[in-house]
Amino acid sequence: MTILTKAAIVGGGVIGGGWAARFALNGIDVAVFDPDPEAPRKIGEVYANAERALRTLCVAPLPTPGTITYASSIAEAVEGAQWIQESVSEVLALKHKVYAEIQAAAPDTLLGSSTSGFKPSELQEGAANPGSILVAHPFNPVYLLPLVELVPSNATAPETLAFAQAALPPLGMKPLTVRKEIDAHIADRFLEAVWREALWLVKDGIATTEEIDDAIRFGFGLRWAQMGLFETYRVAGGEAGMKHFMAQFGPCLTFPWTKLMDVPEFTDELVDLIAGQSDTQSGHHSIRELERIRDDNLVGILQALKVKPWGAGETLAAYEKQLREASFGGEIKHDYNIPLSLHSARVLPEWVDYNGHMTEFRYLHVFGDATDAFLTHIGMNSAYMARGRSIYTVESHIRHVQEVAAGKPLALETQLLGYDEKRVRLCHIMRGENGEVLATGEHMMLSVDTKAGKACQLEDPIPAKLAAIWEGHQSLDAPDFAGRAIREI
Amino acid sequence: MTILTKAAIVGGGVIGGGWAARFALNGIDVAVFDPDPEAPRKIGEVYANAERALRTLCVAPLPTPGTITYASSIAEAVEGAQWIQESVSEVLALKHKVYAEIQAAAPDTLLGSSTSGFKPSELQEGAANPGSILVAHPFNPVYLLPLVELVPSNATAPETLAFAQAALPPLGMKPLTVRKEIDAHIADRFLEAVWREALWLVKDGIATTEEIDDAIRFGFGLRWAQMGLFETYRVAGGEAGMKHFMAQFGPCLTFPWTKLMDVPEFTDELVDLIAGQSDTQSGHHSIRELERIRDDNLVGILQALKVKPWGAGETLAAYEKQLREASFGGEIKHDYNIPLSLHSARVLPEWVDYNGHMTEFRYLHVFGDATDAFLTHIGMNSAYMARGRSIYTVESHIRHVQEVAAGKPLALETQLLGYDEKRVRLCHIMRGENGEVLATGEHMMLSVDTKAGKACQLEDPIPAKLAAIWEGHQSLDAPDFAGRAIREI
Repeated sequence: MTILTKAAIVGGGVIGGGWAARFALNGIDVAVFDPDPEAPRKIGEVYANAERALRTLCVAPLPTPGTITYASSIAEAVEGAQWIQESVSEVLALKHKVYAEIQAAAPDTLLGSSTSGFKPSELQEGAANPGSILVAHPFNPVYLLPLVELVPSNATAPETLAFAQAALPPLGMKPLTVRKEIDAHIADRFLEAVWREALWLVKDGIATTEEIDDAIRFGFGLRWAQMGLFETYRVAGGEAGMKHFMAQFGPCLTFPWTKLMDVPEFTDELVDLIAGQSDTQSGHHSIRELERIRDDNLVGILQALKVKPWGAGETLAAYEKQLREASFGGEIKHDYNIPLSLHSARVLPEWVDYNGHMTEFRYLHVFGDATDAFLTHIGMNSAYMARGRSIYTVESHIRHVQEVAAGKPLALETQLLGYDEKRVRLCHIMRGENGEVLATGEHMMLSVDTKAGKACQLEDPIPAKLAAIWEGHQSLDAPDFAGRAIREI
Repeated sequence: MTILTKAAIVGGGVIGGGWAARFALNGIDVAVFDPDPEAPRKIGEVYANAERALRTLCVAPLPTPGTITYASSIAEAVEGAQWIQESVSEVLALKHKVYAEIQAAAPDTLLGSSTSGFKPSELQEGAANPGSILVAHPFNPVYLLPLVELVPSNATAPETLAFAQAALPPLGMKPLTVRKEIDAHIADRFLEAVWREALWLVKDGIATTEEIDDAIRFGFGLRWAQMGLFETYRVAGGEAGMKHFMAQFGPCLTFPWTKLMDVPEFTDELVDLIAGQSDTQSGHHSIRELERIRDDNLVGILQALKVKPWGAGETLAAYEKQLREASFGGEIKHDYNIPLSLHSARVLPEWVDYNGHMTEFRYLHVFGDATDAFLTHIGMNSAYMARGRSIYTVESHIRHVQEVAAGKPLALETQLLGYDEKRVRLCHIMRGENGEVLATGEHMMLSVDTKAGKACQLEDPIPAKLAAIWEGHQSLDAPDFAGRAIREI
């Protein structure tokens, strides 16, 4: 569970907006200060992308989003926040000015900087309370990439670092604490090295921007999404391992394989050359389109890494587990004399086929989520599953009543049709915003001993919960589609 | 279709073995020359990993594998080959010696070098036929990563380059032709830059090997798997685009953010420090285990990128399309006296839920694809739909018979149960590799006028095609699950 209830965002560009979305979508209220009158529109667009991506990424239910408000002063923004994130331009004097304003209002609140270059000791110069300041450097898009480099200086209070280390994982983020402060921390030193080399290659006509991107994304980029540098090379060393690899590769350090010793002159010609090549490469997509393509790909990559789980997929798995647990908490009163309303959804763009309608199997996707919500409601939580018990759907009968378009809000109505010691039979009605029936589902569930791989009796607390629901639902009429077969023709 | 029938591999280490597997699994016979008596065992292990990974990667059927044989001389290995790939140690004198032997036997055959450092003009020094020599630099694992840097020198014959450019895509590979020869080509210049910087960070105690890997794989590594450097930054520039990004980032080139100007001394202490940290980080997995983890992750990432398709996923999609067309090439005769086999699939990593089993709705996903294959078979193609006619599923009854894990191959069996002027009723049986029943589906389809949004009669050529199938299928027994309802409890 998140330990934050309010976060303040100072500076609302791509990075500040990404932080705002990450916080808000995890149920944290956000106050933004940015003098740019366009900030609400820009952050609104980042938020829309973030919501779309995060809801696709997570199979677990996200909490009710926090609100995003726009403050007219830094003092107003930071009031009552437990986390203040600064993402203003990379100008040290500007950051110092902003820090003075922040700490005049909230000197003891954690103040994280999104800086990619400055050391925390530089940020702390002249600060009212250096102890609450540290670097918390995220990666774009902040709402999807887990990494946050946490860099304390000697003046950063240990409690500040500890608070940051505890606050980020519940947001689905991966804090990486850097042992000693250094310019550009860790990752950006690599990015800077590659950037310098890439500029030379373009300038010298060895490769275009597109060819350089291809050299990365068709090759080692696919490796680095999962194992990074050293583990990749450990594997590449084969049976002989890391020392063998180093013995092979080490001597290359003295080869003149790089122009890194020299810095390319950053002329207008070089800027035009690169910007022109980039237009040729990517100009047929708008930036917003590219963002959505990037996000969809990231969602797919993160979900693929979740299978083991491995690396960033492990972070995602832990995040979802926590979200699922959180949704079990909080006891909501339900009226068992009417069908249950436990699940709602919205048709995502990627659920739609070439006809513009929700694809056939996504109906079962939504019904399956509604079934999960019902099972959670009757007590099938992680504690239950940890005992080697689960409940599987063994049979489904779906009627597709209406076509459904992207963006359509879906409300699910669930009725218990019967149960015995091992089985649960229920139905769902999927309705649109005006109550119209879009589809119906009837489902048979079986209690399973997951270790033995066979059916078993339902266990506490499920039978009692089912009995409580059944007391009301047994007097409801069964819908006419229940118990029916597909008719012969 | 591949234009190769035989390839020769000279040097059978991790890279040579990867080439051997890539060639053989694409139906090309391979002759290996490597004086190491362990070479057959090592290549056998690489091949086993490659087969496992490639069969999971591709939904389309791979051709019958080529044979791998071990030659006792270079002359024997290269005889009759259309492609000779050299992957011996990075020692120029050794390569020259090997090239002399190769070209004594096969002077006109394409000779590609896996070198990561040498320029083609260096390799060609003293060669009998420099025109057939070029760099063909792959990336480990060669059987999964698509990239091959093709680097010709001025002495390389244009036909040699053209042959390489044509031969690689049918193997699922992505040739990237480097415009001018340069030490280390393109990608390895970046890897070398990051490697140098990483050695400094470890040496100076800023980060361990594991922390460095995490700084990559939880952050920009996830971006580089899909967009590389320049396109990522184009997006990061936000609405203002590439020039804005460069204006922000350009001045950093003069910051002292890197130790790249200086080369760390490659002492035994540094080697021990890194090897020790790497053991701590990854030593609990054997190299073979790490290889399989890496391969599974790569398969998942590549399949995730295939959804758009994008980058390496586009290469995979094109590869599968070609495999599928090759396998369906010409008119396949279907026997209408037995159920139809029109669709097969493999359970994707992202289809699996937190229990490790295929999620409920993915069963309908696979049945829906099988229904699409059936509809295509009876003539519902893009021309039919362009007339404003389509066929929608209106009802489905699914029985989940067995749990199914990621990677499981699925074979679909389809039977026509009946049809009339507007409707089609059919069923699918989903079977595993041993014929075991995993799930069943029964489906009712309705012919729809998509403009009017209502039911309409099926149109040519569909009724005739249905009649032809029905002539055989009407005498098949209907499966016992057909026409059945979910039973009451």
